Amino acid sequence: MKKETINVGILGLGTVGQGVIKVLQENRGFIEQKIYPRKIVLKRIADKDRNKILPKPELYKIFTDSAQEVVADPEIDIIVETMGGFEPARTFIMQALKSGKHVVTANKEVIARAGYEILNLAQENRVYFLFEASVASGIPIIGALSNSLTSYKLKEIIGILNGTTNYILTKMSDEDRDYKEALEEAQKRGYAEADPSKDIDGFDTCNKIFILSAIAFRAMINPDRIYYEGIRNISKLDIEYARELGYTIKLLALAKDDGQQLDIRVHPALIPKRHTMANINGAYNGILLRGEGFGDLTFSGLGAGALPAGSMIVSDIVEIVNNFNNYRNNYNYFKKKEIKDFKQTQSPFYLRIRVKDRPGVLAEIAGSFAKNEVSFASVIQKGEAGEIVDIVFLTHRAKEGNVQEALKEVSCLECVEKICSTIRGVEI
Amino acid sequence: MKKETINVGILGLGTVGQGVIKVLQENRGFIEQKIYPRKIVLKRIADKDRNKILPKPELYKIFTDSAQEVVADPEIDIIVETMGGFEPARTFIMQALKSGKHVVTANKEVIARAGYEILNLAQENRVYFLFEASVASGIPIIGALSNSLTSYKLKEIIGILNGTTNYILTKMSDEDRDYKEALEEAQKRGYAEADPSKDIDGFDTCNKIFILSAIAFRAMINPDRIYYEGIRNISKLDIEYARELGYTIKLLALAKDDGQQLDIRVHPALIPKRHTMANINGAYNGILLRGEGFGDLTFSGLGAGALPAGSMIVSDIVEIVNNFNNYRNNYNYFKKKEIKDFKQTQSPFYLRIRVKDRPGVLAEIAGSFAKNEVSFASVIQKGEAGEIVDIVFLTHRAKEGNVQEALKEVSCLECVEKICSTIRGVEI
Repeated sequence: MKKETINVGILGLGTVGQGVIKVLQENRGFIEQKIYPRKIVLKRIADKDRNKILPKPELYKIFTDSAQEVVADPEIDIIVETMGGFEPARTFIMQALKSGKHVVTANKEVIARAGYEILNLAQENRVYFLFEASVASGIPIIGALSNSLTSYKLKEIIGILNGTTNYILTKMSDEDRDYKEALEEAQKRGYAEADPSKDIDGFDTCNKIFILSAIAFRAMINPDRIYYEGIRNISKLDIEYARELGYTIKLLALAKDDGQQLDIRVHPALIPKRHTMANINGAYNGILLRGEGFGDLTFSGLGAGALPAGSMIVSDIVEIVNNFNNYRNNYNYFKKKEIKDFKQTQSPFYLRIRVKDRPGVLAEIAGSFAKNEVSFASVIQKGEAGEIVDIVFLTHRAKEGNVQEALKEVSCLECVEKICSTIRGVEI
Repeated sequence: MKKETINVGILGLGTVGQGVIKVLQENRGFIEQKIYPRKIVLKRIADKDRNKILPKPELYKIFTDSAQEVVADPEIDIIVETMGGFEPARTFIMQALKSGKHVVTANKEVIARAGYEILNLAQENRVYFLFEASVASGIPIIGALSNSLTSYKLKEIIGILNGTTNYILTKMSDEDRDYKEALEEAQKRGYAEADPSKDIDGFDTCNKIFILSAIAFRAMINPDRIYYEGIRNISKLDIEYARELGYTIKLLALAKDDGQQLDIRVHPALIPKRHTMANINGAYNGILLRGEGFGDLTFSGLGAGALPAGSMIVSDIVEIVNNFNNYRNNYNYFKKKEIKDFKQTQSPFYLRIRVKDRPGVLAEIAGSFAKNEVSFASVIQKGEAGEIVDIVFLTHRAKEGNVQEALKEVSCLECVEKICSTIRGVEI
């Protein structure tokens, strides 16, 4: 006999959990058309903080402060994990899957650190583990990669995957703010957390590009091998100089399959300012997929927020409900792949070097770069002539390790005051 | 017992059919990972023109010039219909479904004119009818709307859905070509057919926005009620004037759900030139989805071509293979909706009117518009003063019928030589 009522339990009433409730309540009729004749019932909600449920008296009787109670409830079919963070979220997810419950989550940290193990457990128990909301929540990218692009052989992913840093960089670029002002504004508007370091330093983006790479390339990879660097060192001055040269600076996630290894990394990068990805602004995320023969497929949408994330989680629930008696494993195959050593990767570079303004300086610097096989596409002196000037170098594509080596040498030159900025470019 | 070999038959070896074969051949290993332990076997290929198979000797033995033979083959599980056009494609599709075969197609004309009937028949026979490649083939939009965005309540779709016209408009805009030159270049490069009228006049875009609207709004609508207008009358001069005013002209498909009716239409429109949709260029397609609370979700990708379309069709095949014994109906619900009378729709307008250059002209014209409740946002005289000048008017949002009425009156004024151009805008 087919089960007609599917019971859902939510763990965690933060922004995303609240979004799930809102979507379930407000779009009920609309959603029920799509799962007819089944119905989704919100059975239990858990949060450590009882105050979170105060604004919703109609839900008091299904609220508990014990997530354990919800996970253990035998009547619940689907657990929505929206507590965030690694533990205890991982433990609850594993426990739910073991007891035959489906799980939907937006928790990129858990997936990055325990995703393969969780997917295996889900498969063993023939239940779904879905996570559309974990990456670029307003963009249905996991569904596209898992269900729609199954015969596209992807070569490359370029992503702007963090709304906080994109908001900050957009403010710095469009309104000429410095980093600190832009961060404060992002915090004031709720786009950045009180402790924004996971976003600012690229860790969040790193988790997301890990997830996209694993799914897109069906790859088993070690996320700890992904190089990531954030935007703390991006100055207003470099944004301005980059703009003069025709570029916008974005925090990019890059993943490329060269057939042997995966080149995956996260760092700020210069993009030609007319390119679509340079025009993904504010809290928006963007993802570009590239493969042979089918051009660039680009998505842009809100990266976070109660409704985008809530809608995606509910769409995952709908998928489970529609396949309730027909378990099908989307992720039965991951091939072990190595991540390319960061020093072996190649990029063009933007370098800003502060030097003593006197004859022969350029020759000395150029010599160090030439020795390390780094050549320049352009060299521009910035600021007025004086004792000390900044020189901006744009290099041709060069090996990361060689550029690091050259910079080490250059920084020891007597004529060089300081390596001010090292920002990679992207051949897009 | 589970069937492990799924047999595919292809009807029609045009660009798309060839693309399907290429993807099946070249990505075999890659695809088999995703459908393991099943296998896809290309069993029969039909085309009226025997020359089409000449370059592929390895396929001679599965080729026939009778589509009927392929549809009637009891061993074939999935029919790929890539013949195009309405009949006999529709008949073959219906026949295949009736005999329990799944069907995958890129044929927007058949879907626009017989889609509901076909979906019903597929449902009765518990087989799949999939059509991802029918709209914007490089963009997995049907999958996104059908599977990933099931709890998003969409309000609006804005699409650039025809690569031919977008290529022509891009050439006219970026390289200052006139319409005829741009069309010839599109034909030379294979972006436009010898008889390009279905593309140029908006019919193709009309079929595509019908499909997107039906799926997005789960609406049963009459495609004949959709107003469409193509790009034949767009002049280099209007592109230039629009650009000076900050706009790009694109052939847009618009669909909006006002809760009561659907406002669906296809016509050239001015878009602010910094908007993402204004920067979808050349043979690319773009689709913007808008709903309450989750911002704009935008997709861009190639609109046509052997590999984009072939990949999407093969992805549809993969979906069928993965659900082979678990039939699930994605489209069990369409609600009858009316399409808003075009005369009742509202747009801002760009109007270029040729007049005798003498005092009082503007007052006369403005009077006719005012009488019909059309007000101006700006009025600019173009060209040097002389006997005859062009005036460009940008109106505020106004009712289509009122603008038509006003233009009828204005064209009768003695001071008016000619209504040169009437192009709508879009509030994006």
